[in-house]
Amino acid sequence: MAQNKKETQQPTKQKTSAKKPQSKSATKNSKNTKQSKGSKFNAKPNKKVQNKTKKPQNTLPIKIIPLGGLQEIGKNITLYEYGSDLLLVDCGMAFPDEEMPGIDIVIPDFSYLISNKDRIKGLILTHGHEDHIGGIPYLLKNFNVPIYATRLTLGLVEGKLKEHRLLAGAQLNTVKPGQTVKLGSFEVEFIHVNHSIPDAVGFAITTPAGTVIQTGDFKIDTTPIDDHVIDIARFAEYGKKGVLALLSDSTNAERPGFTASERKVGESFSTLFKKAEGHRIIVATFSSNIHRIQQIIDEAVRCNRKVAVSGRSMINVVAVAEELGYLSVPAGVLIDIESINRYERENIVIITTGSQGEPLSALHRMAFSDHRNVDIFPDDMIIISATPIPGNEKLVSKVVNELIKRGANVVYEKMYDVHVSGHACQEELKLILSVVNPRYFIPVHGEEKHLIKHAGLAETLGVDKKNIVIANIGDVISLDKKSIRITETVPAGSVMVDGLGVGDVGSVVLRDRKHLADDGILVVGIAMDSVTNEVVSGPDIISRGFVYVKESEELIDSATVVAERALEYCYLHRIHDRGAIKNKVKDTVSKFIFEKTRRRPMVLPIIMDV
Amino acid sequence: MAQNKKETQQPTKQKTSAKKPQSKSATKNSKNTKQSKGSKFNAKPNKKVQNKTKKPQNTLPIKIIPLGGLQEIGKNITLYEYGSDLLLVDCGMAFPDEEMPGIDIVIPDFSYLISNKDRIKGLILTHGHEDHIGGIPYLLKNFNVPIYATRLTLGLVEGKLKEHRLLAGAQLNTVKPGQTVKLGSFEVEFIHVNHSIPDAVGFAITTPAGTVIQTGDFKIDTTPIDDHVIDIARFAEYGKKGVLALLSDSTNAERPGFTASERKVGESFSTLFKKAEGHRIIVATFSSNIHRIQQIIDEAVRCNRKVAVSGRSMINVVAVAEELGYLSVPAGVLIDIESINRYERENIVIITTGSQGEPLSALHRMAFSDHRNVDIFPDDMIIISATPIPGNEKLVSKVVNELIKRGANVVYEKMYDVHVSGHACQEELKLILSVVNPRYFIPVHGEEKHLIKHAGLAETLGVDKKNIVIANIGDVISLDKKSIRITETVPAGSVMVDGLGVGDVGSVVLRDRKHLADDGILVVGIAMDSVTNEVVSGPDIISRGFVYVKESEELIDSATVVAERALEYCYLHRIHDRGAIKNKVKDTVSKFIFEKTRRRPMVLPIIMDV
Repeated sequence: MAQNKKETQQPTKQKTSAKKPQSKSATKNSKNTKQSKGSKFNAKPNKKVQNKTKKPQNTLPIKIIPLGGLQEIGKNITLYEYGSDLLLVDCGMAFPDEEMPGIDIVIPDFSYLISNKDRIKGLILTHGHEDHIGGIPYLLKNFNVPIYATRLTLGLVEGKLKEHRLLAGAQLNTVKPGQTVKLGSFEVEFIHVNHSIPDAVGFAITTPAGTVIQTGDFKIDTTPIDDHVIDIARFAEYGKKGVLALLSDSTNAERPGFTASERKVGESFSTLFKKAEGHRIIVATFSSNIHRIQQIIDEAVRCNRKVAVSGRSMINVVAVAEELGYLSVPAGVLIDIESINRYERENIVIITTGSQGEPLSALHRMAFSDHRNVDIFPDDMIIISATPIPGNEKLVSKVVNELIKRGANVVYEKMYDVHVSGHACQEELKLILSVVNPRYFIPVHGEEKHLIKHAGLAETLGVDKKNIVIANIGDVISLDKKSIRITETVPAGSVMVDGLGVGDVGSVVLRDRKHLADDGILVVGIAMDSVTNEVVSGPDIISRGFVYVKESEELIDSATVVAERALEYCYLHRIHDRGAIKNKVKDTVSKFIFEKTRRRPMVLPIIMDV
Repeated sequence: MAQNKKETQQPTKQKTSAKKPQSKSATKNSKNTKQSKGSKFNAKPNKKVQNKTKKPQNTLPIKIIPLGGLQEIGKNITLYEYGSDLLLVDCGMAFPDEEMPGIDIVIPDFSYLISNKDRIKGLILTHGHEDHIGGIPYLLKNFNVPIYATRLTLGLVEGKLKEHRLLAGAQLNTVKPGQTVKLGSFEVEFIHVNHSIPDAVGFAITTPAGTVIQTGDFKIDTTPIDDHVIDIARFAEYGKKGVLALLSDSTNAERPGFTASERKVGESFSTLFKKAEGHRIIVATFSSNIHRIQQIIDEAVRCNRKVAVSGRSMINVVAVAEELGYLSVPAGVLIDIESINRYERENIVIITTGSQGEPLSALHRMAFSDHRNVDIFPDDMIIISATPIPGNEKLVSKVVNELIKRGANVVYEKMYDVHVSGHACQEELKLILSVVNPRYFIPVHGEEKHLIKHAGLAETLGVDKKNIVIANIGDVISLDKKSIRITETVPAGSVMVDGLGVGDVGSVVLRDRKHLADDGILVVGIAMDSVTNEVVSGPDIISRGFVYVKESEELIDSATVVAERALEYCYLHRIHDRGAIKNKVKDTVSKFIFEKTRRRPMVLPIIMDV
């Protein structure tokens, strides 16, 4: 496949075709419909079947296959199938949970995509958050695919690909909201939405069988910072023409009412900056929330303060956003974090990462006196402009407590409106449902509790319960004008990334890690004569993560005696098989240790044959 | 020291003296004042000093030494010192945090108490929650001390001591709210407060130097389930007479307004039980919230339902509470969980543990089809009558999602008022501050952010900033009519309990556990000739928790070659010291593995000398 570099304006105003080779293959394959169901995923078009089942094109079902983002938070990725053409929407990552010690990130299982890679006409992106783009480098390591996204989203993807040395071969195509891209059998219109990152879009994906709307992550902000209100009119126009299915963001489906405008946060900043007169201000927020950062900068400018930026991702995003024109900073306002000491503290605003209390983040380092450039002073005003993501509450509290101990004035949680969500609440969700007025509804982007709540909202608006599908990742949702149903499943799941390893840590390794974390390990070293089977050295017991060795010599000595006896038993009973001896030693020592301590460390006998 | 069994009515109506031997020793020691400051903790009364410093008794300072519960959530324990007499208030435990894998519970460091055990006149308890009584068995394993508490609190302590086989020697003394106990130089009045467990009290601790009020955990419930409203009048009487210091519960100091009455929850149950007509009802709540349980039972009785109880602690507490008369259950209402299948599901209410999503709890087992007696059915009404404690949000969500997947109708979080806090919010805290009107204020029971907020409330009520002390555990807060200040510190901290081991897991073991959890372990087995120093077997590498072994043979093989080379290097350079060889192997293999994988497993070389 020919690979071309970024073409910033490749798709034209309306109904732009994607690169020719794809359109051609799309045309060729679009009639081929049923072979994928029973056969291997990567089967070639089957002429015979094709001829036998010649039907009018518009009777083919659309298949929607969520490969991530349902029944979980993160790694959003959805596959659309029409005939033999595939279209991929987003490719995100997730953060490991407490059951995954040592894991860096979690990405989707790509095996179904890899098996069908030649059928994928493109990857379209809703916005530049990690849970929608973080998996892209790992996908592109498997195969190349042209990517279509808005300018800022592509800017953030570019940075990612550069890090992974994948930029040279990448096919990045900029699309503006309002434009349509043709990818095989799919015509995709990019529709502007509001979210906590600029340049977010939803999609109207039109196939011969009808149109599916996927909102992407969105909220309805009638007073957004960039003045671009979500294009409700366009969603409504599709609604009037008739929409087959709606896939909508369920994140806040449990919350009644409307999500407040981002501008609300600006008002709070204005109040707080006034209160902080004479003191330094530090604001922690998400690096991707460029509108938030813009508001901080605007307020800093109004108060004649300089702005310094701290934290790797914050520095990166601010650079990209400024370069692409998404952030407007008057000359001379931004200063290097290394030079803050050259200014009076009261004339400084620091924008930093760490709003989730992450242990390696800049704010955490500041709190624990571990930041290269920033010490916390009494009377610093510190604003945590974020809500803890579930699971991070204690991390955030730890940082807040530490900052307060240093005398800082910390604004967190609900003390002021210093954060608003980027996701639609119930009234917004209902509004979108009602203007799009879909035949079928598939709540996405959420756990079961969110999806069910969202489904309930749709029902109250008159969507028939049997036309609502709560799906799992890997489900193949097949829909046409007559019905919607889950017809089969394909491989889907989580692949763990640990260091350079992708997928080499699985459930066995995690189980061992959990075991080691809870109770530590006892290694029993034994040297054995390979001819006579006599023990020639050991058993020697070494423990790690079990007890403090110096204070437990007696216990370890007794365990050594127990291991000796087990070895004697084996010798006397002519048990010479090394596996059997190891099991005997392991069981005997484990039992002894449990009786003495009520703990179950991993016991690992090692026999050296000499 | 003579040990007597429980005396249910030992203290009389007013100003009861504790057992004579104590009063005597108290009288003897109460004049002995200053020796503890510079000298060893367990120093004997020093006649000389005593004679030299003969002052009027009421000029001695009171010392308040929090040994837990400040700058942390849990393990509440406070020591009072007047002259040579010590009085202990509460002795709680805490739950381990994510930095303490494998740890069962955390208890206070008792070393200061052990050094001064002969001076401790008694342990008085505010209420029966684990964070106030959970450490008692571990304290009593060190030394015996008479315990004074209300009836229910003692009932719960008794169960605990029975489990630890400590009941026979325990000195348990029942005190009624309104009664006063004299313990050495301390006269302690038990004052009734409202909380999420019955029979909770605060203390007015009177010494010759003045009175200190410690609220214990409290809220102001004007319509409590047992009709006993907190005894505000008594707090106010002390306030009028003059209170030296107030120690007050800071848990909800961040929350404005008033905490709702427990009765509010009953109203929600009433609504929900009506909605659930025809369906089984399962309510998960804290086992110690006996008023909550009473309300569930009352509602069940009204709806002609039988009640079954599930979960070890729930079964225990219901039994104790019913036996002591704190729970009133009409005959025939309670049924065994084993027999629920003999009734129609719509005639059943199950009260269960697991409201925090704890993995081994009854509700968790039900959700994941692992409960011996209860399967979840579609249309079961499940009420989670609790708020997730910070850190448990994801655990609760997991259970909720699973229950919803099984078709159950789950009521959780803020959907109805199915939970109210047991702790006072800002308006209640201000009310107590204003009626007690203390000279000094010491916010307790909370992290820095709670304490600071509480201090701020006191300031708004006119308490002088210099009369407010935000302390750390181990601080000795010395106060008299003239001043309050932190004069010194004593040993205080966390002791980890893991299985039968108390305090044998420390920071080194935890660091190893964390390391093992993140990256696993590589054991390098080597057998070496003890005379020639030649390697006679190995190196053999075995890994656990690192990579899936079968798929990483090549990596392990290469690491083995690297280890071989390191051993050759040592041999050729005549490095024969076993420690030095181990270090060389460890460093070389670690470096190689990091280069190949970007992971840092623990590398543990074992040399067997033969």
